[in-house]
Amino acid sequence: MSKRSQQDRLFEKYNIRTDLALESHQAVIEQEGPPELPGVKVHTEKEEGITLTRITVESDLGAQLMGKAPGNYSTLEAPGLRMHNRDLHERLAQLLAKEIEWFFEQSGLGDEDAVLVVGLGNWNATPDALGPKAVENLMVTRHLLEMSPPELRRGLRPISAIAPGVLGITGIETGEIIMGVAERIGAKAVICIDALASRSVERLCSTIQISDTGIHPGAGVGNRRLAINKETLGIPVIAIGVPTVVHAVTIVSDAMDLIERGSVQSPEGGQPPERVQFKIDPGTIMGGQAPRPEIRANAASDKRQIISQVLEPYFGSMIVTPKEIDLLIDEVSDVIAGALNTSFHEGVSYDEVFKYLS
Amino acid sequence: MSKRSQQDRLFEKYNIRTDLALESHQAVIEQEGPPELPGVKVHTEKEEGITLTRITVESDLGAQLMGKAPGNYSTLEAPGLRMHNRDLHERLAQLLAKEIEWFFEQSGLGDEDAVLVVGLGNWNATPDALGPKAVENLMVTRHLLEMSPPELRRGLRPISAIAPGVLGITGIETGEIIMGVAERIGAKAVICIDALASRSVERLCSTIQISDTGIHPGAGVGNRRLAINKETLGIPVIAIGVPTVVHAVTIVSDAMDLIERGSVQSPEGGQPPERVQFKIDPGTIMGGQAPRPEIRANAASDKRQIISQVLEPYFGSMIVTPKEIDLLIDEVSDVIAGALNTSFHEGVSYDEVFKYLS
Amino acid sequence: MSKRSQQDRLFEKYNIRTDLALESHQAVIEQEGPPELPGVKVHTEKEEGITLTRITVESDLGAQLMGKAPGNYSTLEAPGLRMHNRDLHERLAQLLAKEIEWFFEQSGLGDEDAVLVVGLGNWNATPDALGPKAVENLMVTRHLLEMSPPELRRGLRPISAIAPGVLGITGIETGEIIMGVAERIGAKAVICIDALASRSVERLCSTIQISDTGIHPGAGVGNRRLAINKETLGIPVIAIGVPTVVHAVTIVSDAMDLIERGSVQSPEGGQPPERVQFKIDPGTIMGGQAPRPEIRANAASDKRQIISQVLEPYFGSMIVTPKEIDLLIDEVSDVIAGALNTSFHEGVSYDEVFKYLS
Amino acid sequence: MSKRSQQDRLFEKYNIRTDLALESHQAVIEQEGPPELPGVKVHTEKEEGITLTRITVESDLGAQLMGKAPGNYSTLEAPGLRMHNRDLHERLAQLLAKEIEWFFEQSGLGDEDAVLVVGLGNWNATPDALGPKAVENLMVTRHLLEMSPPELRRGLRPISAIAPGVLGITGIETGEIIMGVAERIGAKAVICIDALASRSVERLCSTIQISDTGIHPGAGVGNRRLAINKETLGIPVIAIGVPTVVHAVTIVSDAMDLIERGSVQSPEGGQPPERVQFKIDPGTIMGGQAPRPEIRANAASDKRQIISQVLEPYFGSMIVTPKEIDLLIDEVSDVIAGALNTSFHEGVSYDEVFKYLS
Repeated sequence: MSKRSQQDRLFEKYNIRTDLALESHQAVIEQEGPPELPGVKVHTEKEEGITLTRITVESDLGAQLMGKAPGNYSTLEAPGLRMHNRDLHERLAQLLAKEIEWFFEQSGLGDEDAVLVVGLGNWNATPDALGPKAVENLMVTRHLLEMSPPELRRGLRPISAIAPGVLGITGIETGEIIMGVAERIGAKAVICIDALASRSVERLCSTIQISDTGIHPGAGVGNRRLAINKETLGIPVIAIGVPTVVHAVTIVSDAMDLIERGSVQSPEGGQPPERVQFKIDPGTIMGGQAPRPEIRANAASDKRQIISQVLEPYFGSMIVTPKEIDLLIDEVSDVIAGALNTSFHEGVSYDEVFKYLS
Repeated sequence: MSKRSQQDRLFEKYNIRTDLALESHQAVIEQEGPPELPGVKVHTEKEEGITLTRITVESDLGAQLMGKAPGNYSTLEAPGLRMHNRDLHERLAQLLAKEIEWFFEQSGLGDEDAVLVVGLGNWNATPDALGPKAVENLMVTRHLLEMSPPELRRGLRPISAIAPGVLGITGIETGEIIMGVAERIGAKAVICIDALASRSVERLCSTIQISDTGIHPGAGVGNRRLAINKETLGIPVIAIGVPTVVHAVTIVSDAMDLIERGSVQSPEGGQPPERVQFKIDPGTIMGGQAPRPEIRANAASDKRQIISQVLEPYFGSMIVTPKEIDLLIDEVSDVIAGALNTSFHEGVSYDEVFKYLS
Repeated sequence: MSKRSQQDRLFEKYNIRTDLALESHQAVIEQEGPPELPGVKVHTEKEEGITLTRITVESDLGAQLMGKAPGNYSTLEAPGLRMHNRDLHERLAQLLAKEIEWFFEQSGLGDEDAVLVVGLGNWNATPDALGPKAVENLMVTRHLLEMSPPELRRGLRPISAIAPGVLGITGIETGEIIMGVAERIGAKAVICIDALASRSVERLCSTIQISDTGIHPGAGVGNRRLAINKETLGIPVIAIGVPTVVHAVTIVSDAMDLIERGSVQSPEGGQPPERVQFKIDPGTIMGGQAPRPEIRANAASDKRQIISQVLEPYFGSMIVTPKEIDLLIDEVSDVIAGALNTSFHEGVSYDEVFKYLS
Repeated sequence: MSKRSQQDRLFEKYNIRTDLALESHQAVIEQEGPPELPGVKVHTEKEEGITLTRITVESDLGAQLMGKAPGNYSTLEAPGLRMHNRDLHERLAQLLAKEIEWFFEQSGLGDEDAVLVVGLGNWNATPDALGPKAVENLMVTRHLLEMSPPELRRGLRPISAIAPGVLGITGIETGEIIMGVAERIGAKAVICIDALASRSVERLCSTIQISDTGIHPGAGVGNRRLAINKETLGIPVIAIGVPTVVHAVTIVSDAMDLIERGSVQSPEGGQPPERVQFKIDPGTIMGGQAPRPEIRANAASDKRQIISQVLEPYFGSMIVTPKEIDLLIDEVSDVIAGALNTSFHEGVSYDEVFKYLS
């Protein structure tokens, strides 16, 4: 079964529209009951204000259950990212840098191997501009290193960066542009930065995922048809993503979850709202028709699936974002650029690189 | 009862979070049943692709029922605005210009009376940038007229324009800035352009409302505490608004409406989805408690109210917009600027104004 | 003689098109010879990479000689500002904050007196966007203080900020908008931030001037007709300006100076270029006509004046800026916003202000 | 001799810093005297407000004299472009479209041959943003055509577009990105849109050059080291360029020309300024040293060359632009995008293309 159809099946089964492995995992656990999934390893660390979760999908069974390709997914959750807390920003950038370095090691990338950073998404659509904005603050060095004598380049990594735009504006699949450029310049690895869709509004602009499984068709805020991964590019692809939108259809399901759950807790730790319950009868939803047999297995997901079908034509192109999305995108793209600069040029400032080489 | 508390009561009663009189009217009709509201006159005209609805709230009773201050509300609906249809844009601008001229007449504004145009909202938050963007394309003439001999100014209207920013950025209530400037320059009327919240995603960036009742506290995408109307400014205030967001809490209610209604029609005129039904039992929602007596009266609105209460802490600051909001805002602000330029300087281009005066 | 005509006379006499008192002073010294001007006090301090010059114009004679109104002018020169040196940025912001505090004391401003900060200039014209950009990063507090009980406001200064736009876009003189708003909110002082024109390309985006004489008609990058100063507003006006352009006509005179001087030194401390000389014969420039008697006095300024007259129709609306002006404006506006935040809310972060008050 | 060194020699000889063949031609004619250059054909047409000049460099001798590679250079001059004249904009776009079609024919491009449009330059530097802005308004069709059955694609041209950024931001030569992408997508021709430097301020944002000789190292506002032409890409390269800056050093030479010429005419057709003359004595400029023999040949160019040398360290990175450059760039990039859309999809609107294919 292809990755695409795995994703589709998960979407069908649980109506989970999320690009975060962490949310897929939670959703499956919630639905399926067992505390652990076969072929999926989860490890969690915490420090003040930040939770780091490393999920490794080790087998095809795990991949099938999660709807995510086999590989590594690290997620940094920092709700305080939305509070303009500068100290937290810096600590998060440090942690992210270390995590990126771990992915470099995993993919066998050498210290002097050239990396192409790709800011995916659309400059002109705020929630999709994360990638281009992050790329803008990167320290690129490839052109400086190329002009330097070999003995000076030792230990320095050539970094280049592009923001290729989106299909509707370029007429070209982003994957094709990346292939063309990566091949031409002889990049040894690609890092893609992308805006994602999550299932939960709480994670918007406060969660960062790093993975080594690349970017899959249909993922992210814009639409893509071509995978961007090791199989298509021939070199390791590390994807750094931040959820910036929730699809409107998802938020309705989410809302129904909150209501159905009977008892919800205030996210601010305040008084819990009154106990509420929300009964949905799949029979009536289906207009008296007997539900299809493969759906019967899980009543909760059935309902959500049908609801999603009903709402799609109305809300399909609608996205949910925080009011202050423009500011939040600026801040989280700064964190990512800072982390990349640190992980690329450890202990070296751009001024130093520049002086050293010229 | 103050206007503020009328609005609050309506919000409480029917959970309608809309700045459009048209939507308030529809919601009340839906809930209350009667085809007409006492003290509210409604008139509708259509031409290809555009519906014009004029609502006049004539009495305090009508105002109370609608949750809108007494006065005139004209609404132009043009779903094609979202399709980048240039011809429709131009026809709409023409219609809007005529409607604005009608409001000028209603408010007794003379041909040479100075008008101050105010672009409300925040430059840096895409869905709230409608006002500042519209103002950017206005032809201002006040400074040209001031330098000209009186005999040349005959028949020309001095236009000035500001984009005062928002409270969080200026530390000053927008209303105070407008008062200060309008008084200083001796404006005879103020036109405010503002981004609104609607109840329905279909109206986003495709509906324009003109009203003579001003801007009320808490209306629009940003928050305001001070009314901007004839009472506070001492001169007529004409408000031009376009819904650019739906509050996330509203969309959930809206979605539930769609589902509950049992049978929904596809907005594209395609196949109607299957019949669905969605039962909500206020008893269970309240967790077995007896509902408060004033709520019992209308079960449907009760449910929505409770739901809203449950969701507020989760979705309170979330907004729903179309994916391509940046582009849509550009287009609709062009339509408004074009309409204003036409209505201000009928049959006169800026070049002509400039030549005439210099 | 009015200030305007003083400026004009200076412009005529020495063809100095500069908004910097420091440059006026240097030009007059150069032309007139004497090392000191009567009625003008100059004091200089240096620290690594930064030169602070305080000029006090004490008498009308001094004002006439300098072409600058009587008052205080402090100038911080930091060529390194153009090198993206973060440490220098921070030291400069600290020095600027102290200098601003000195101007507060001079103008008798109390610790709790409300200040209105005004970002002059045009958002949409890069070299003129300094003011609006600086204002964007200010911590405004007026709205927070207004909602707080009096006992909590003690020692805190209400700050508000506007970016009023420019005459061509608003139709209103900037001075009128400021008057209207300052009066309405009861401001006790106004701080104007503005992009200036200098005489020397070396000072672009690397020099900051603070003065207490306000903004004069025709100063700055945009054009203004109305003075913004204590006389027009009735409250102290502190102007913070940064040269971001040189007029094209000025650069030609400057170039001729360089060439005429016979021997020029490389600004980078490198090899001096070959000795060059450039003879200009006013007789031939005037086409054989006898020069007007008042011009004969100073041959050097004569030539420049005539040249300026010749070039005005060709280069009048042309400006000279560094290639990387967009980036430089961002950086210097950050320095100014940082300095203002420090001087307004000494030792208090916005988070603290916010917590304290709510 | 390589093209690069031809350009250098011309630069040395006449100190002409221009990317426009028209200006090179004029300068050489002025300096050398003869009304015609061997191996260079010039043809001029006029219509109201627009002058079209076609220069063909036919031989190596012509190329050497002009400092421009052999090939075709068409220039549209429309001073009214700077006056916001909408009618002129449309007529100019039509003429430009026809001229582009002529270049298509010359290069043997078939009706269905895929074209890659490249917006050269830097988004974040106003005068260099012409290319990226023009590309933003293009109708790209490649992705639509790819999804359509072959019988529907007949007669339609697949258009794609990228804005690759600049070396300092990407670390990659623009030429390398174009090569990588053009090869990957199988483009049959490349169209580059670029901001240029001219010699004359009057041509800024009012002149458009189309050529089939590609983009040369060091041309344009940004710096490039790699040629983008048929030799490097293997497919025809059509370059569309608009001068948006004059180098500061150039403007000084230009100013001296104006002054030296003795008699200058007002560009507005007003009164000619007084006769002026400006003697420059190369002997004194050289500080009494005997000039190098190869310089002696042409005294006028000698002077300019020396002056340029003197000024370079002071003004080297300074550019001259009109004050309203932001607005002008928007307008001229609209004209270019409109012309390209017309020449690509003759008589077909995007709506039609879209409908036709889906």
